[in-house]
Amino acid sequence: MRPIRVDGKSVEVLDQRLLPTREKWIKIRSYEDAYNAIKSMAVRGAPLIGVVAAFGLALTESSEDFGRAAEKLKSARPTAINLAWAVDRVLRAARGSGPQAAYEEALKIFNEELNNARKIGENGEKLFSDGDTVLTHCNAGALATVDYGTALAPIRVAREMGKSLRVYVTETRPVMQGARLTAYELMKDGFDVTLIADTAVGYTMRLGKITKVIVGADRVLRDGTTINKIGTFQVATMAKRFGIPFYVALPSSTLDLESRIEDVKIEERDPSELTYIRGRRIAPRGIKAFNPAFDITPPELITAIITEKGVYYPPFDFSK
Amino acid sequence: MRPIRVDGKSVEVLDQRLLPTREKWIKIRSYEDAYNAIKSMAVRGAPLIGVVAAFGLALTESSEDFGRAAEKLKSARPTAINLAWAVDRVLRAARGSGPQAAYEEALKIFNEELNNARKIGENGEKLFSDGDTVLTHCNAGALATVDYGTALAPIRVAREMGKSLRVYVTETRPVMQGARLTAYELMKDGFDVTLIADTAVGYTMRLGKITKVIVGADRVLRDGTTINKIGTFQVATMAKRFGIPFYVALPSSTLDLESRIEDVKIEERDPSELTYIRGRRIAPRGIKAFNPAFDITPPELITAIITEKGVYYPPFDFSK
Repeated sequence: MRPIRVDGKSVEVLDQRLLPTREKWIKIRSYEDAYNAIKSMAVRGAPLIGVVAAFGLALTESSEDFGRAAEKLKSARPTAINLAWAVDRVLRAARGSGPQAAYEEALKIFNEELNNARKIGENGEKLFSDGDTVLTHCNAGALATVDYGTALAPIRVAREMGKSLRVYVTETRPVMQGARLTAYELMKDGFDVTLIADTAVGYTMRLGKITKVIVGADRVLRDGTTINKIGTFQVATMAKRFGIPFYVALPSSTLDLESRIEDVKIEERDPSELTYIRGRRIAPRGIKAFNPAFDITPPELITAIITEKGVYYPPFDFSK
Repeated sequence: MRPIRVDGKSVEVLDQRLLPTREKWIKIRSYEDAYNAIKSMAVRGAPLIGVVAAFGLALTESSEDFGRAAEKLKSARPTAINLAWAVDRVLRAARGSGPQAAYEEALKIFNEELNNARKIGENGEKLFSDGDTVLTHCNAGALATVDYGTALAPIRVAREMGKSLRVYVTETRPVMQGARLTAYELMKDGFDVTLIADTAVGYTMRLGKITKVIVGADRVLRDGTTINKIGTFQVATMAKRFGIPFYVALPSSTLDLESRIEDVKIEERDPSELTYIRGRRIAPRGIKAFNPAFDITPPELITAIITEKGVYYPPFDFSK
């Protein structure tokens, strides 16, 4: 299940807002198309938005200002580092060698992320045993990447190796990526999937139902501090309380070895994500809402971090 | 805002499933009416379901078997202790002195809970200071009781005393009592209310936005172990991490000094509460869901427990 189709210079992305009830594809012909798809969360997931932005910029008419288009794209969502990283790569190619080089760079990023996901799966699968019940939060699956996923890649490879794993998926309010996307892609693959409310994580762990946790990331800092979907910090805190291993999986394009946590902008999204569900109001008119899209998990809550390069344990040192 | 109207022998309850968009009242004429209202969560909240069950039993025709009606009512929801406690009181009155005594016992429970809520407010308000920002989970407000609330009573009394408090309300998935009910009743009272997703509790605390937490309870054991709405345990765990006081407020009818935690049945509700919202499917067809309605907060996470009798600190001893 790939959320992006690339055929010659025709690029299409799956509109994830409509899943699991509808499958609709959106054409990406310019940086504006990419900006709109990313901003509206028609596409989401750190690796995928990097790839879509790369194609959007590469497909922009050469007469336009690449620099301005790049800035616009980077502003679509501020937290995932992959977006800026991918846009800057295509921008450098365009400025150095022109539009064809820019398109080739986008294709290169696409293929790298495809290979990274597979490698993350191979590196991570060793952490899972036959019979594990794995909790995941949000969607760090095929739908967040080009294919395979980050957090879901080790689970998929473990299964290919003959290990039997069951998966618990948190709903992941407010955008419900767990209920809508992770559940959808794992069920299509034939996994045994159980949905729980975000409120039920602690109690489900208390009952002994969870043996491992794995999540993706939108940005990971030099010391392992992980910025990921809102709610990750709580899941990690509860896992620590119960001694359940907590893993983070990401391509190294998600590493940010430069920034300090103070410098990372945590995106706040529109209150309507909380006050409406599919166009229907669920909270009183006029209520205020605080709707951060990400939170911050400190390294002491993380058992291991998996990238395409290997498995890292605390104290984290990504230079090795 | 009272969710129950008692006028002579006419008893009506507000259908809370439709809030905040519609106000509809349901007549309670028999134990079956009470059973249906409680089972379907048209009425909810530990003190309120006790009162509604009491009236339902008292209004049952005397020719019927009171004992059978009592058992049926107690089975409507297994976790809140108030239900069994109130039903047993009315049953004893009916058996001892007949239907009129049963009705008077139900009225007495109603009035006791009204007074308890006010007293909880007076006892608890001392724990809050001018300028506090208070987080609450689920609805332990007027809508969960006869009036005033349990967790919300101290907040209301503090405000009457001239203290300025702001309130953060968790959505409280899956039934959304926070977004629908707590937000609704506090906004009607003119409070400054901010809604957050259940996933955002830890991050909101990290930002320093929360100075106190207060919740209600469905059952509190002898050592302070608190059974309350699913998600409470996580909120308490995060509060502990950030050194934020965590209070539990309840009438002493919610105390269960007999049971051990192993003996308490944690209700599991229908998966459709997670897979549908207002009749619209939000998760893939055929998915399994685990939907516990309550969780268990251990006493070491609780700063104080407030009842109509006073404020208790650890180690908890409710005999004093």
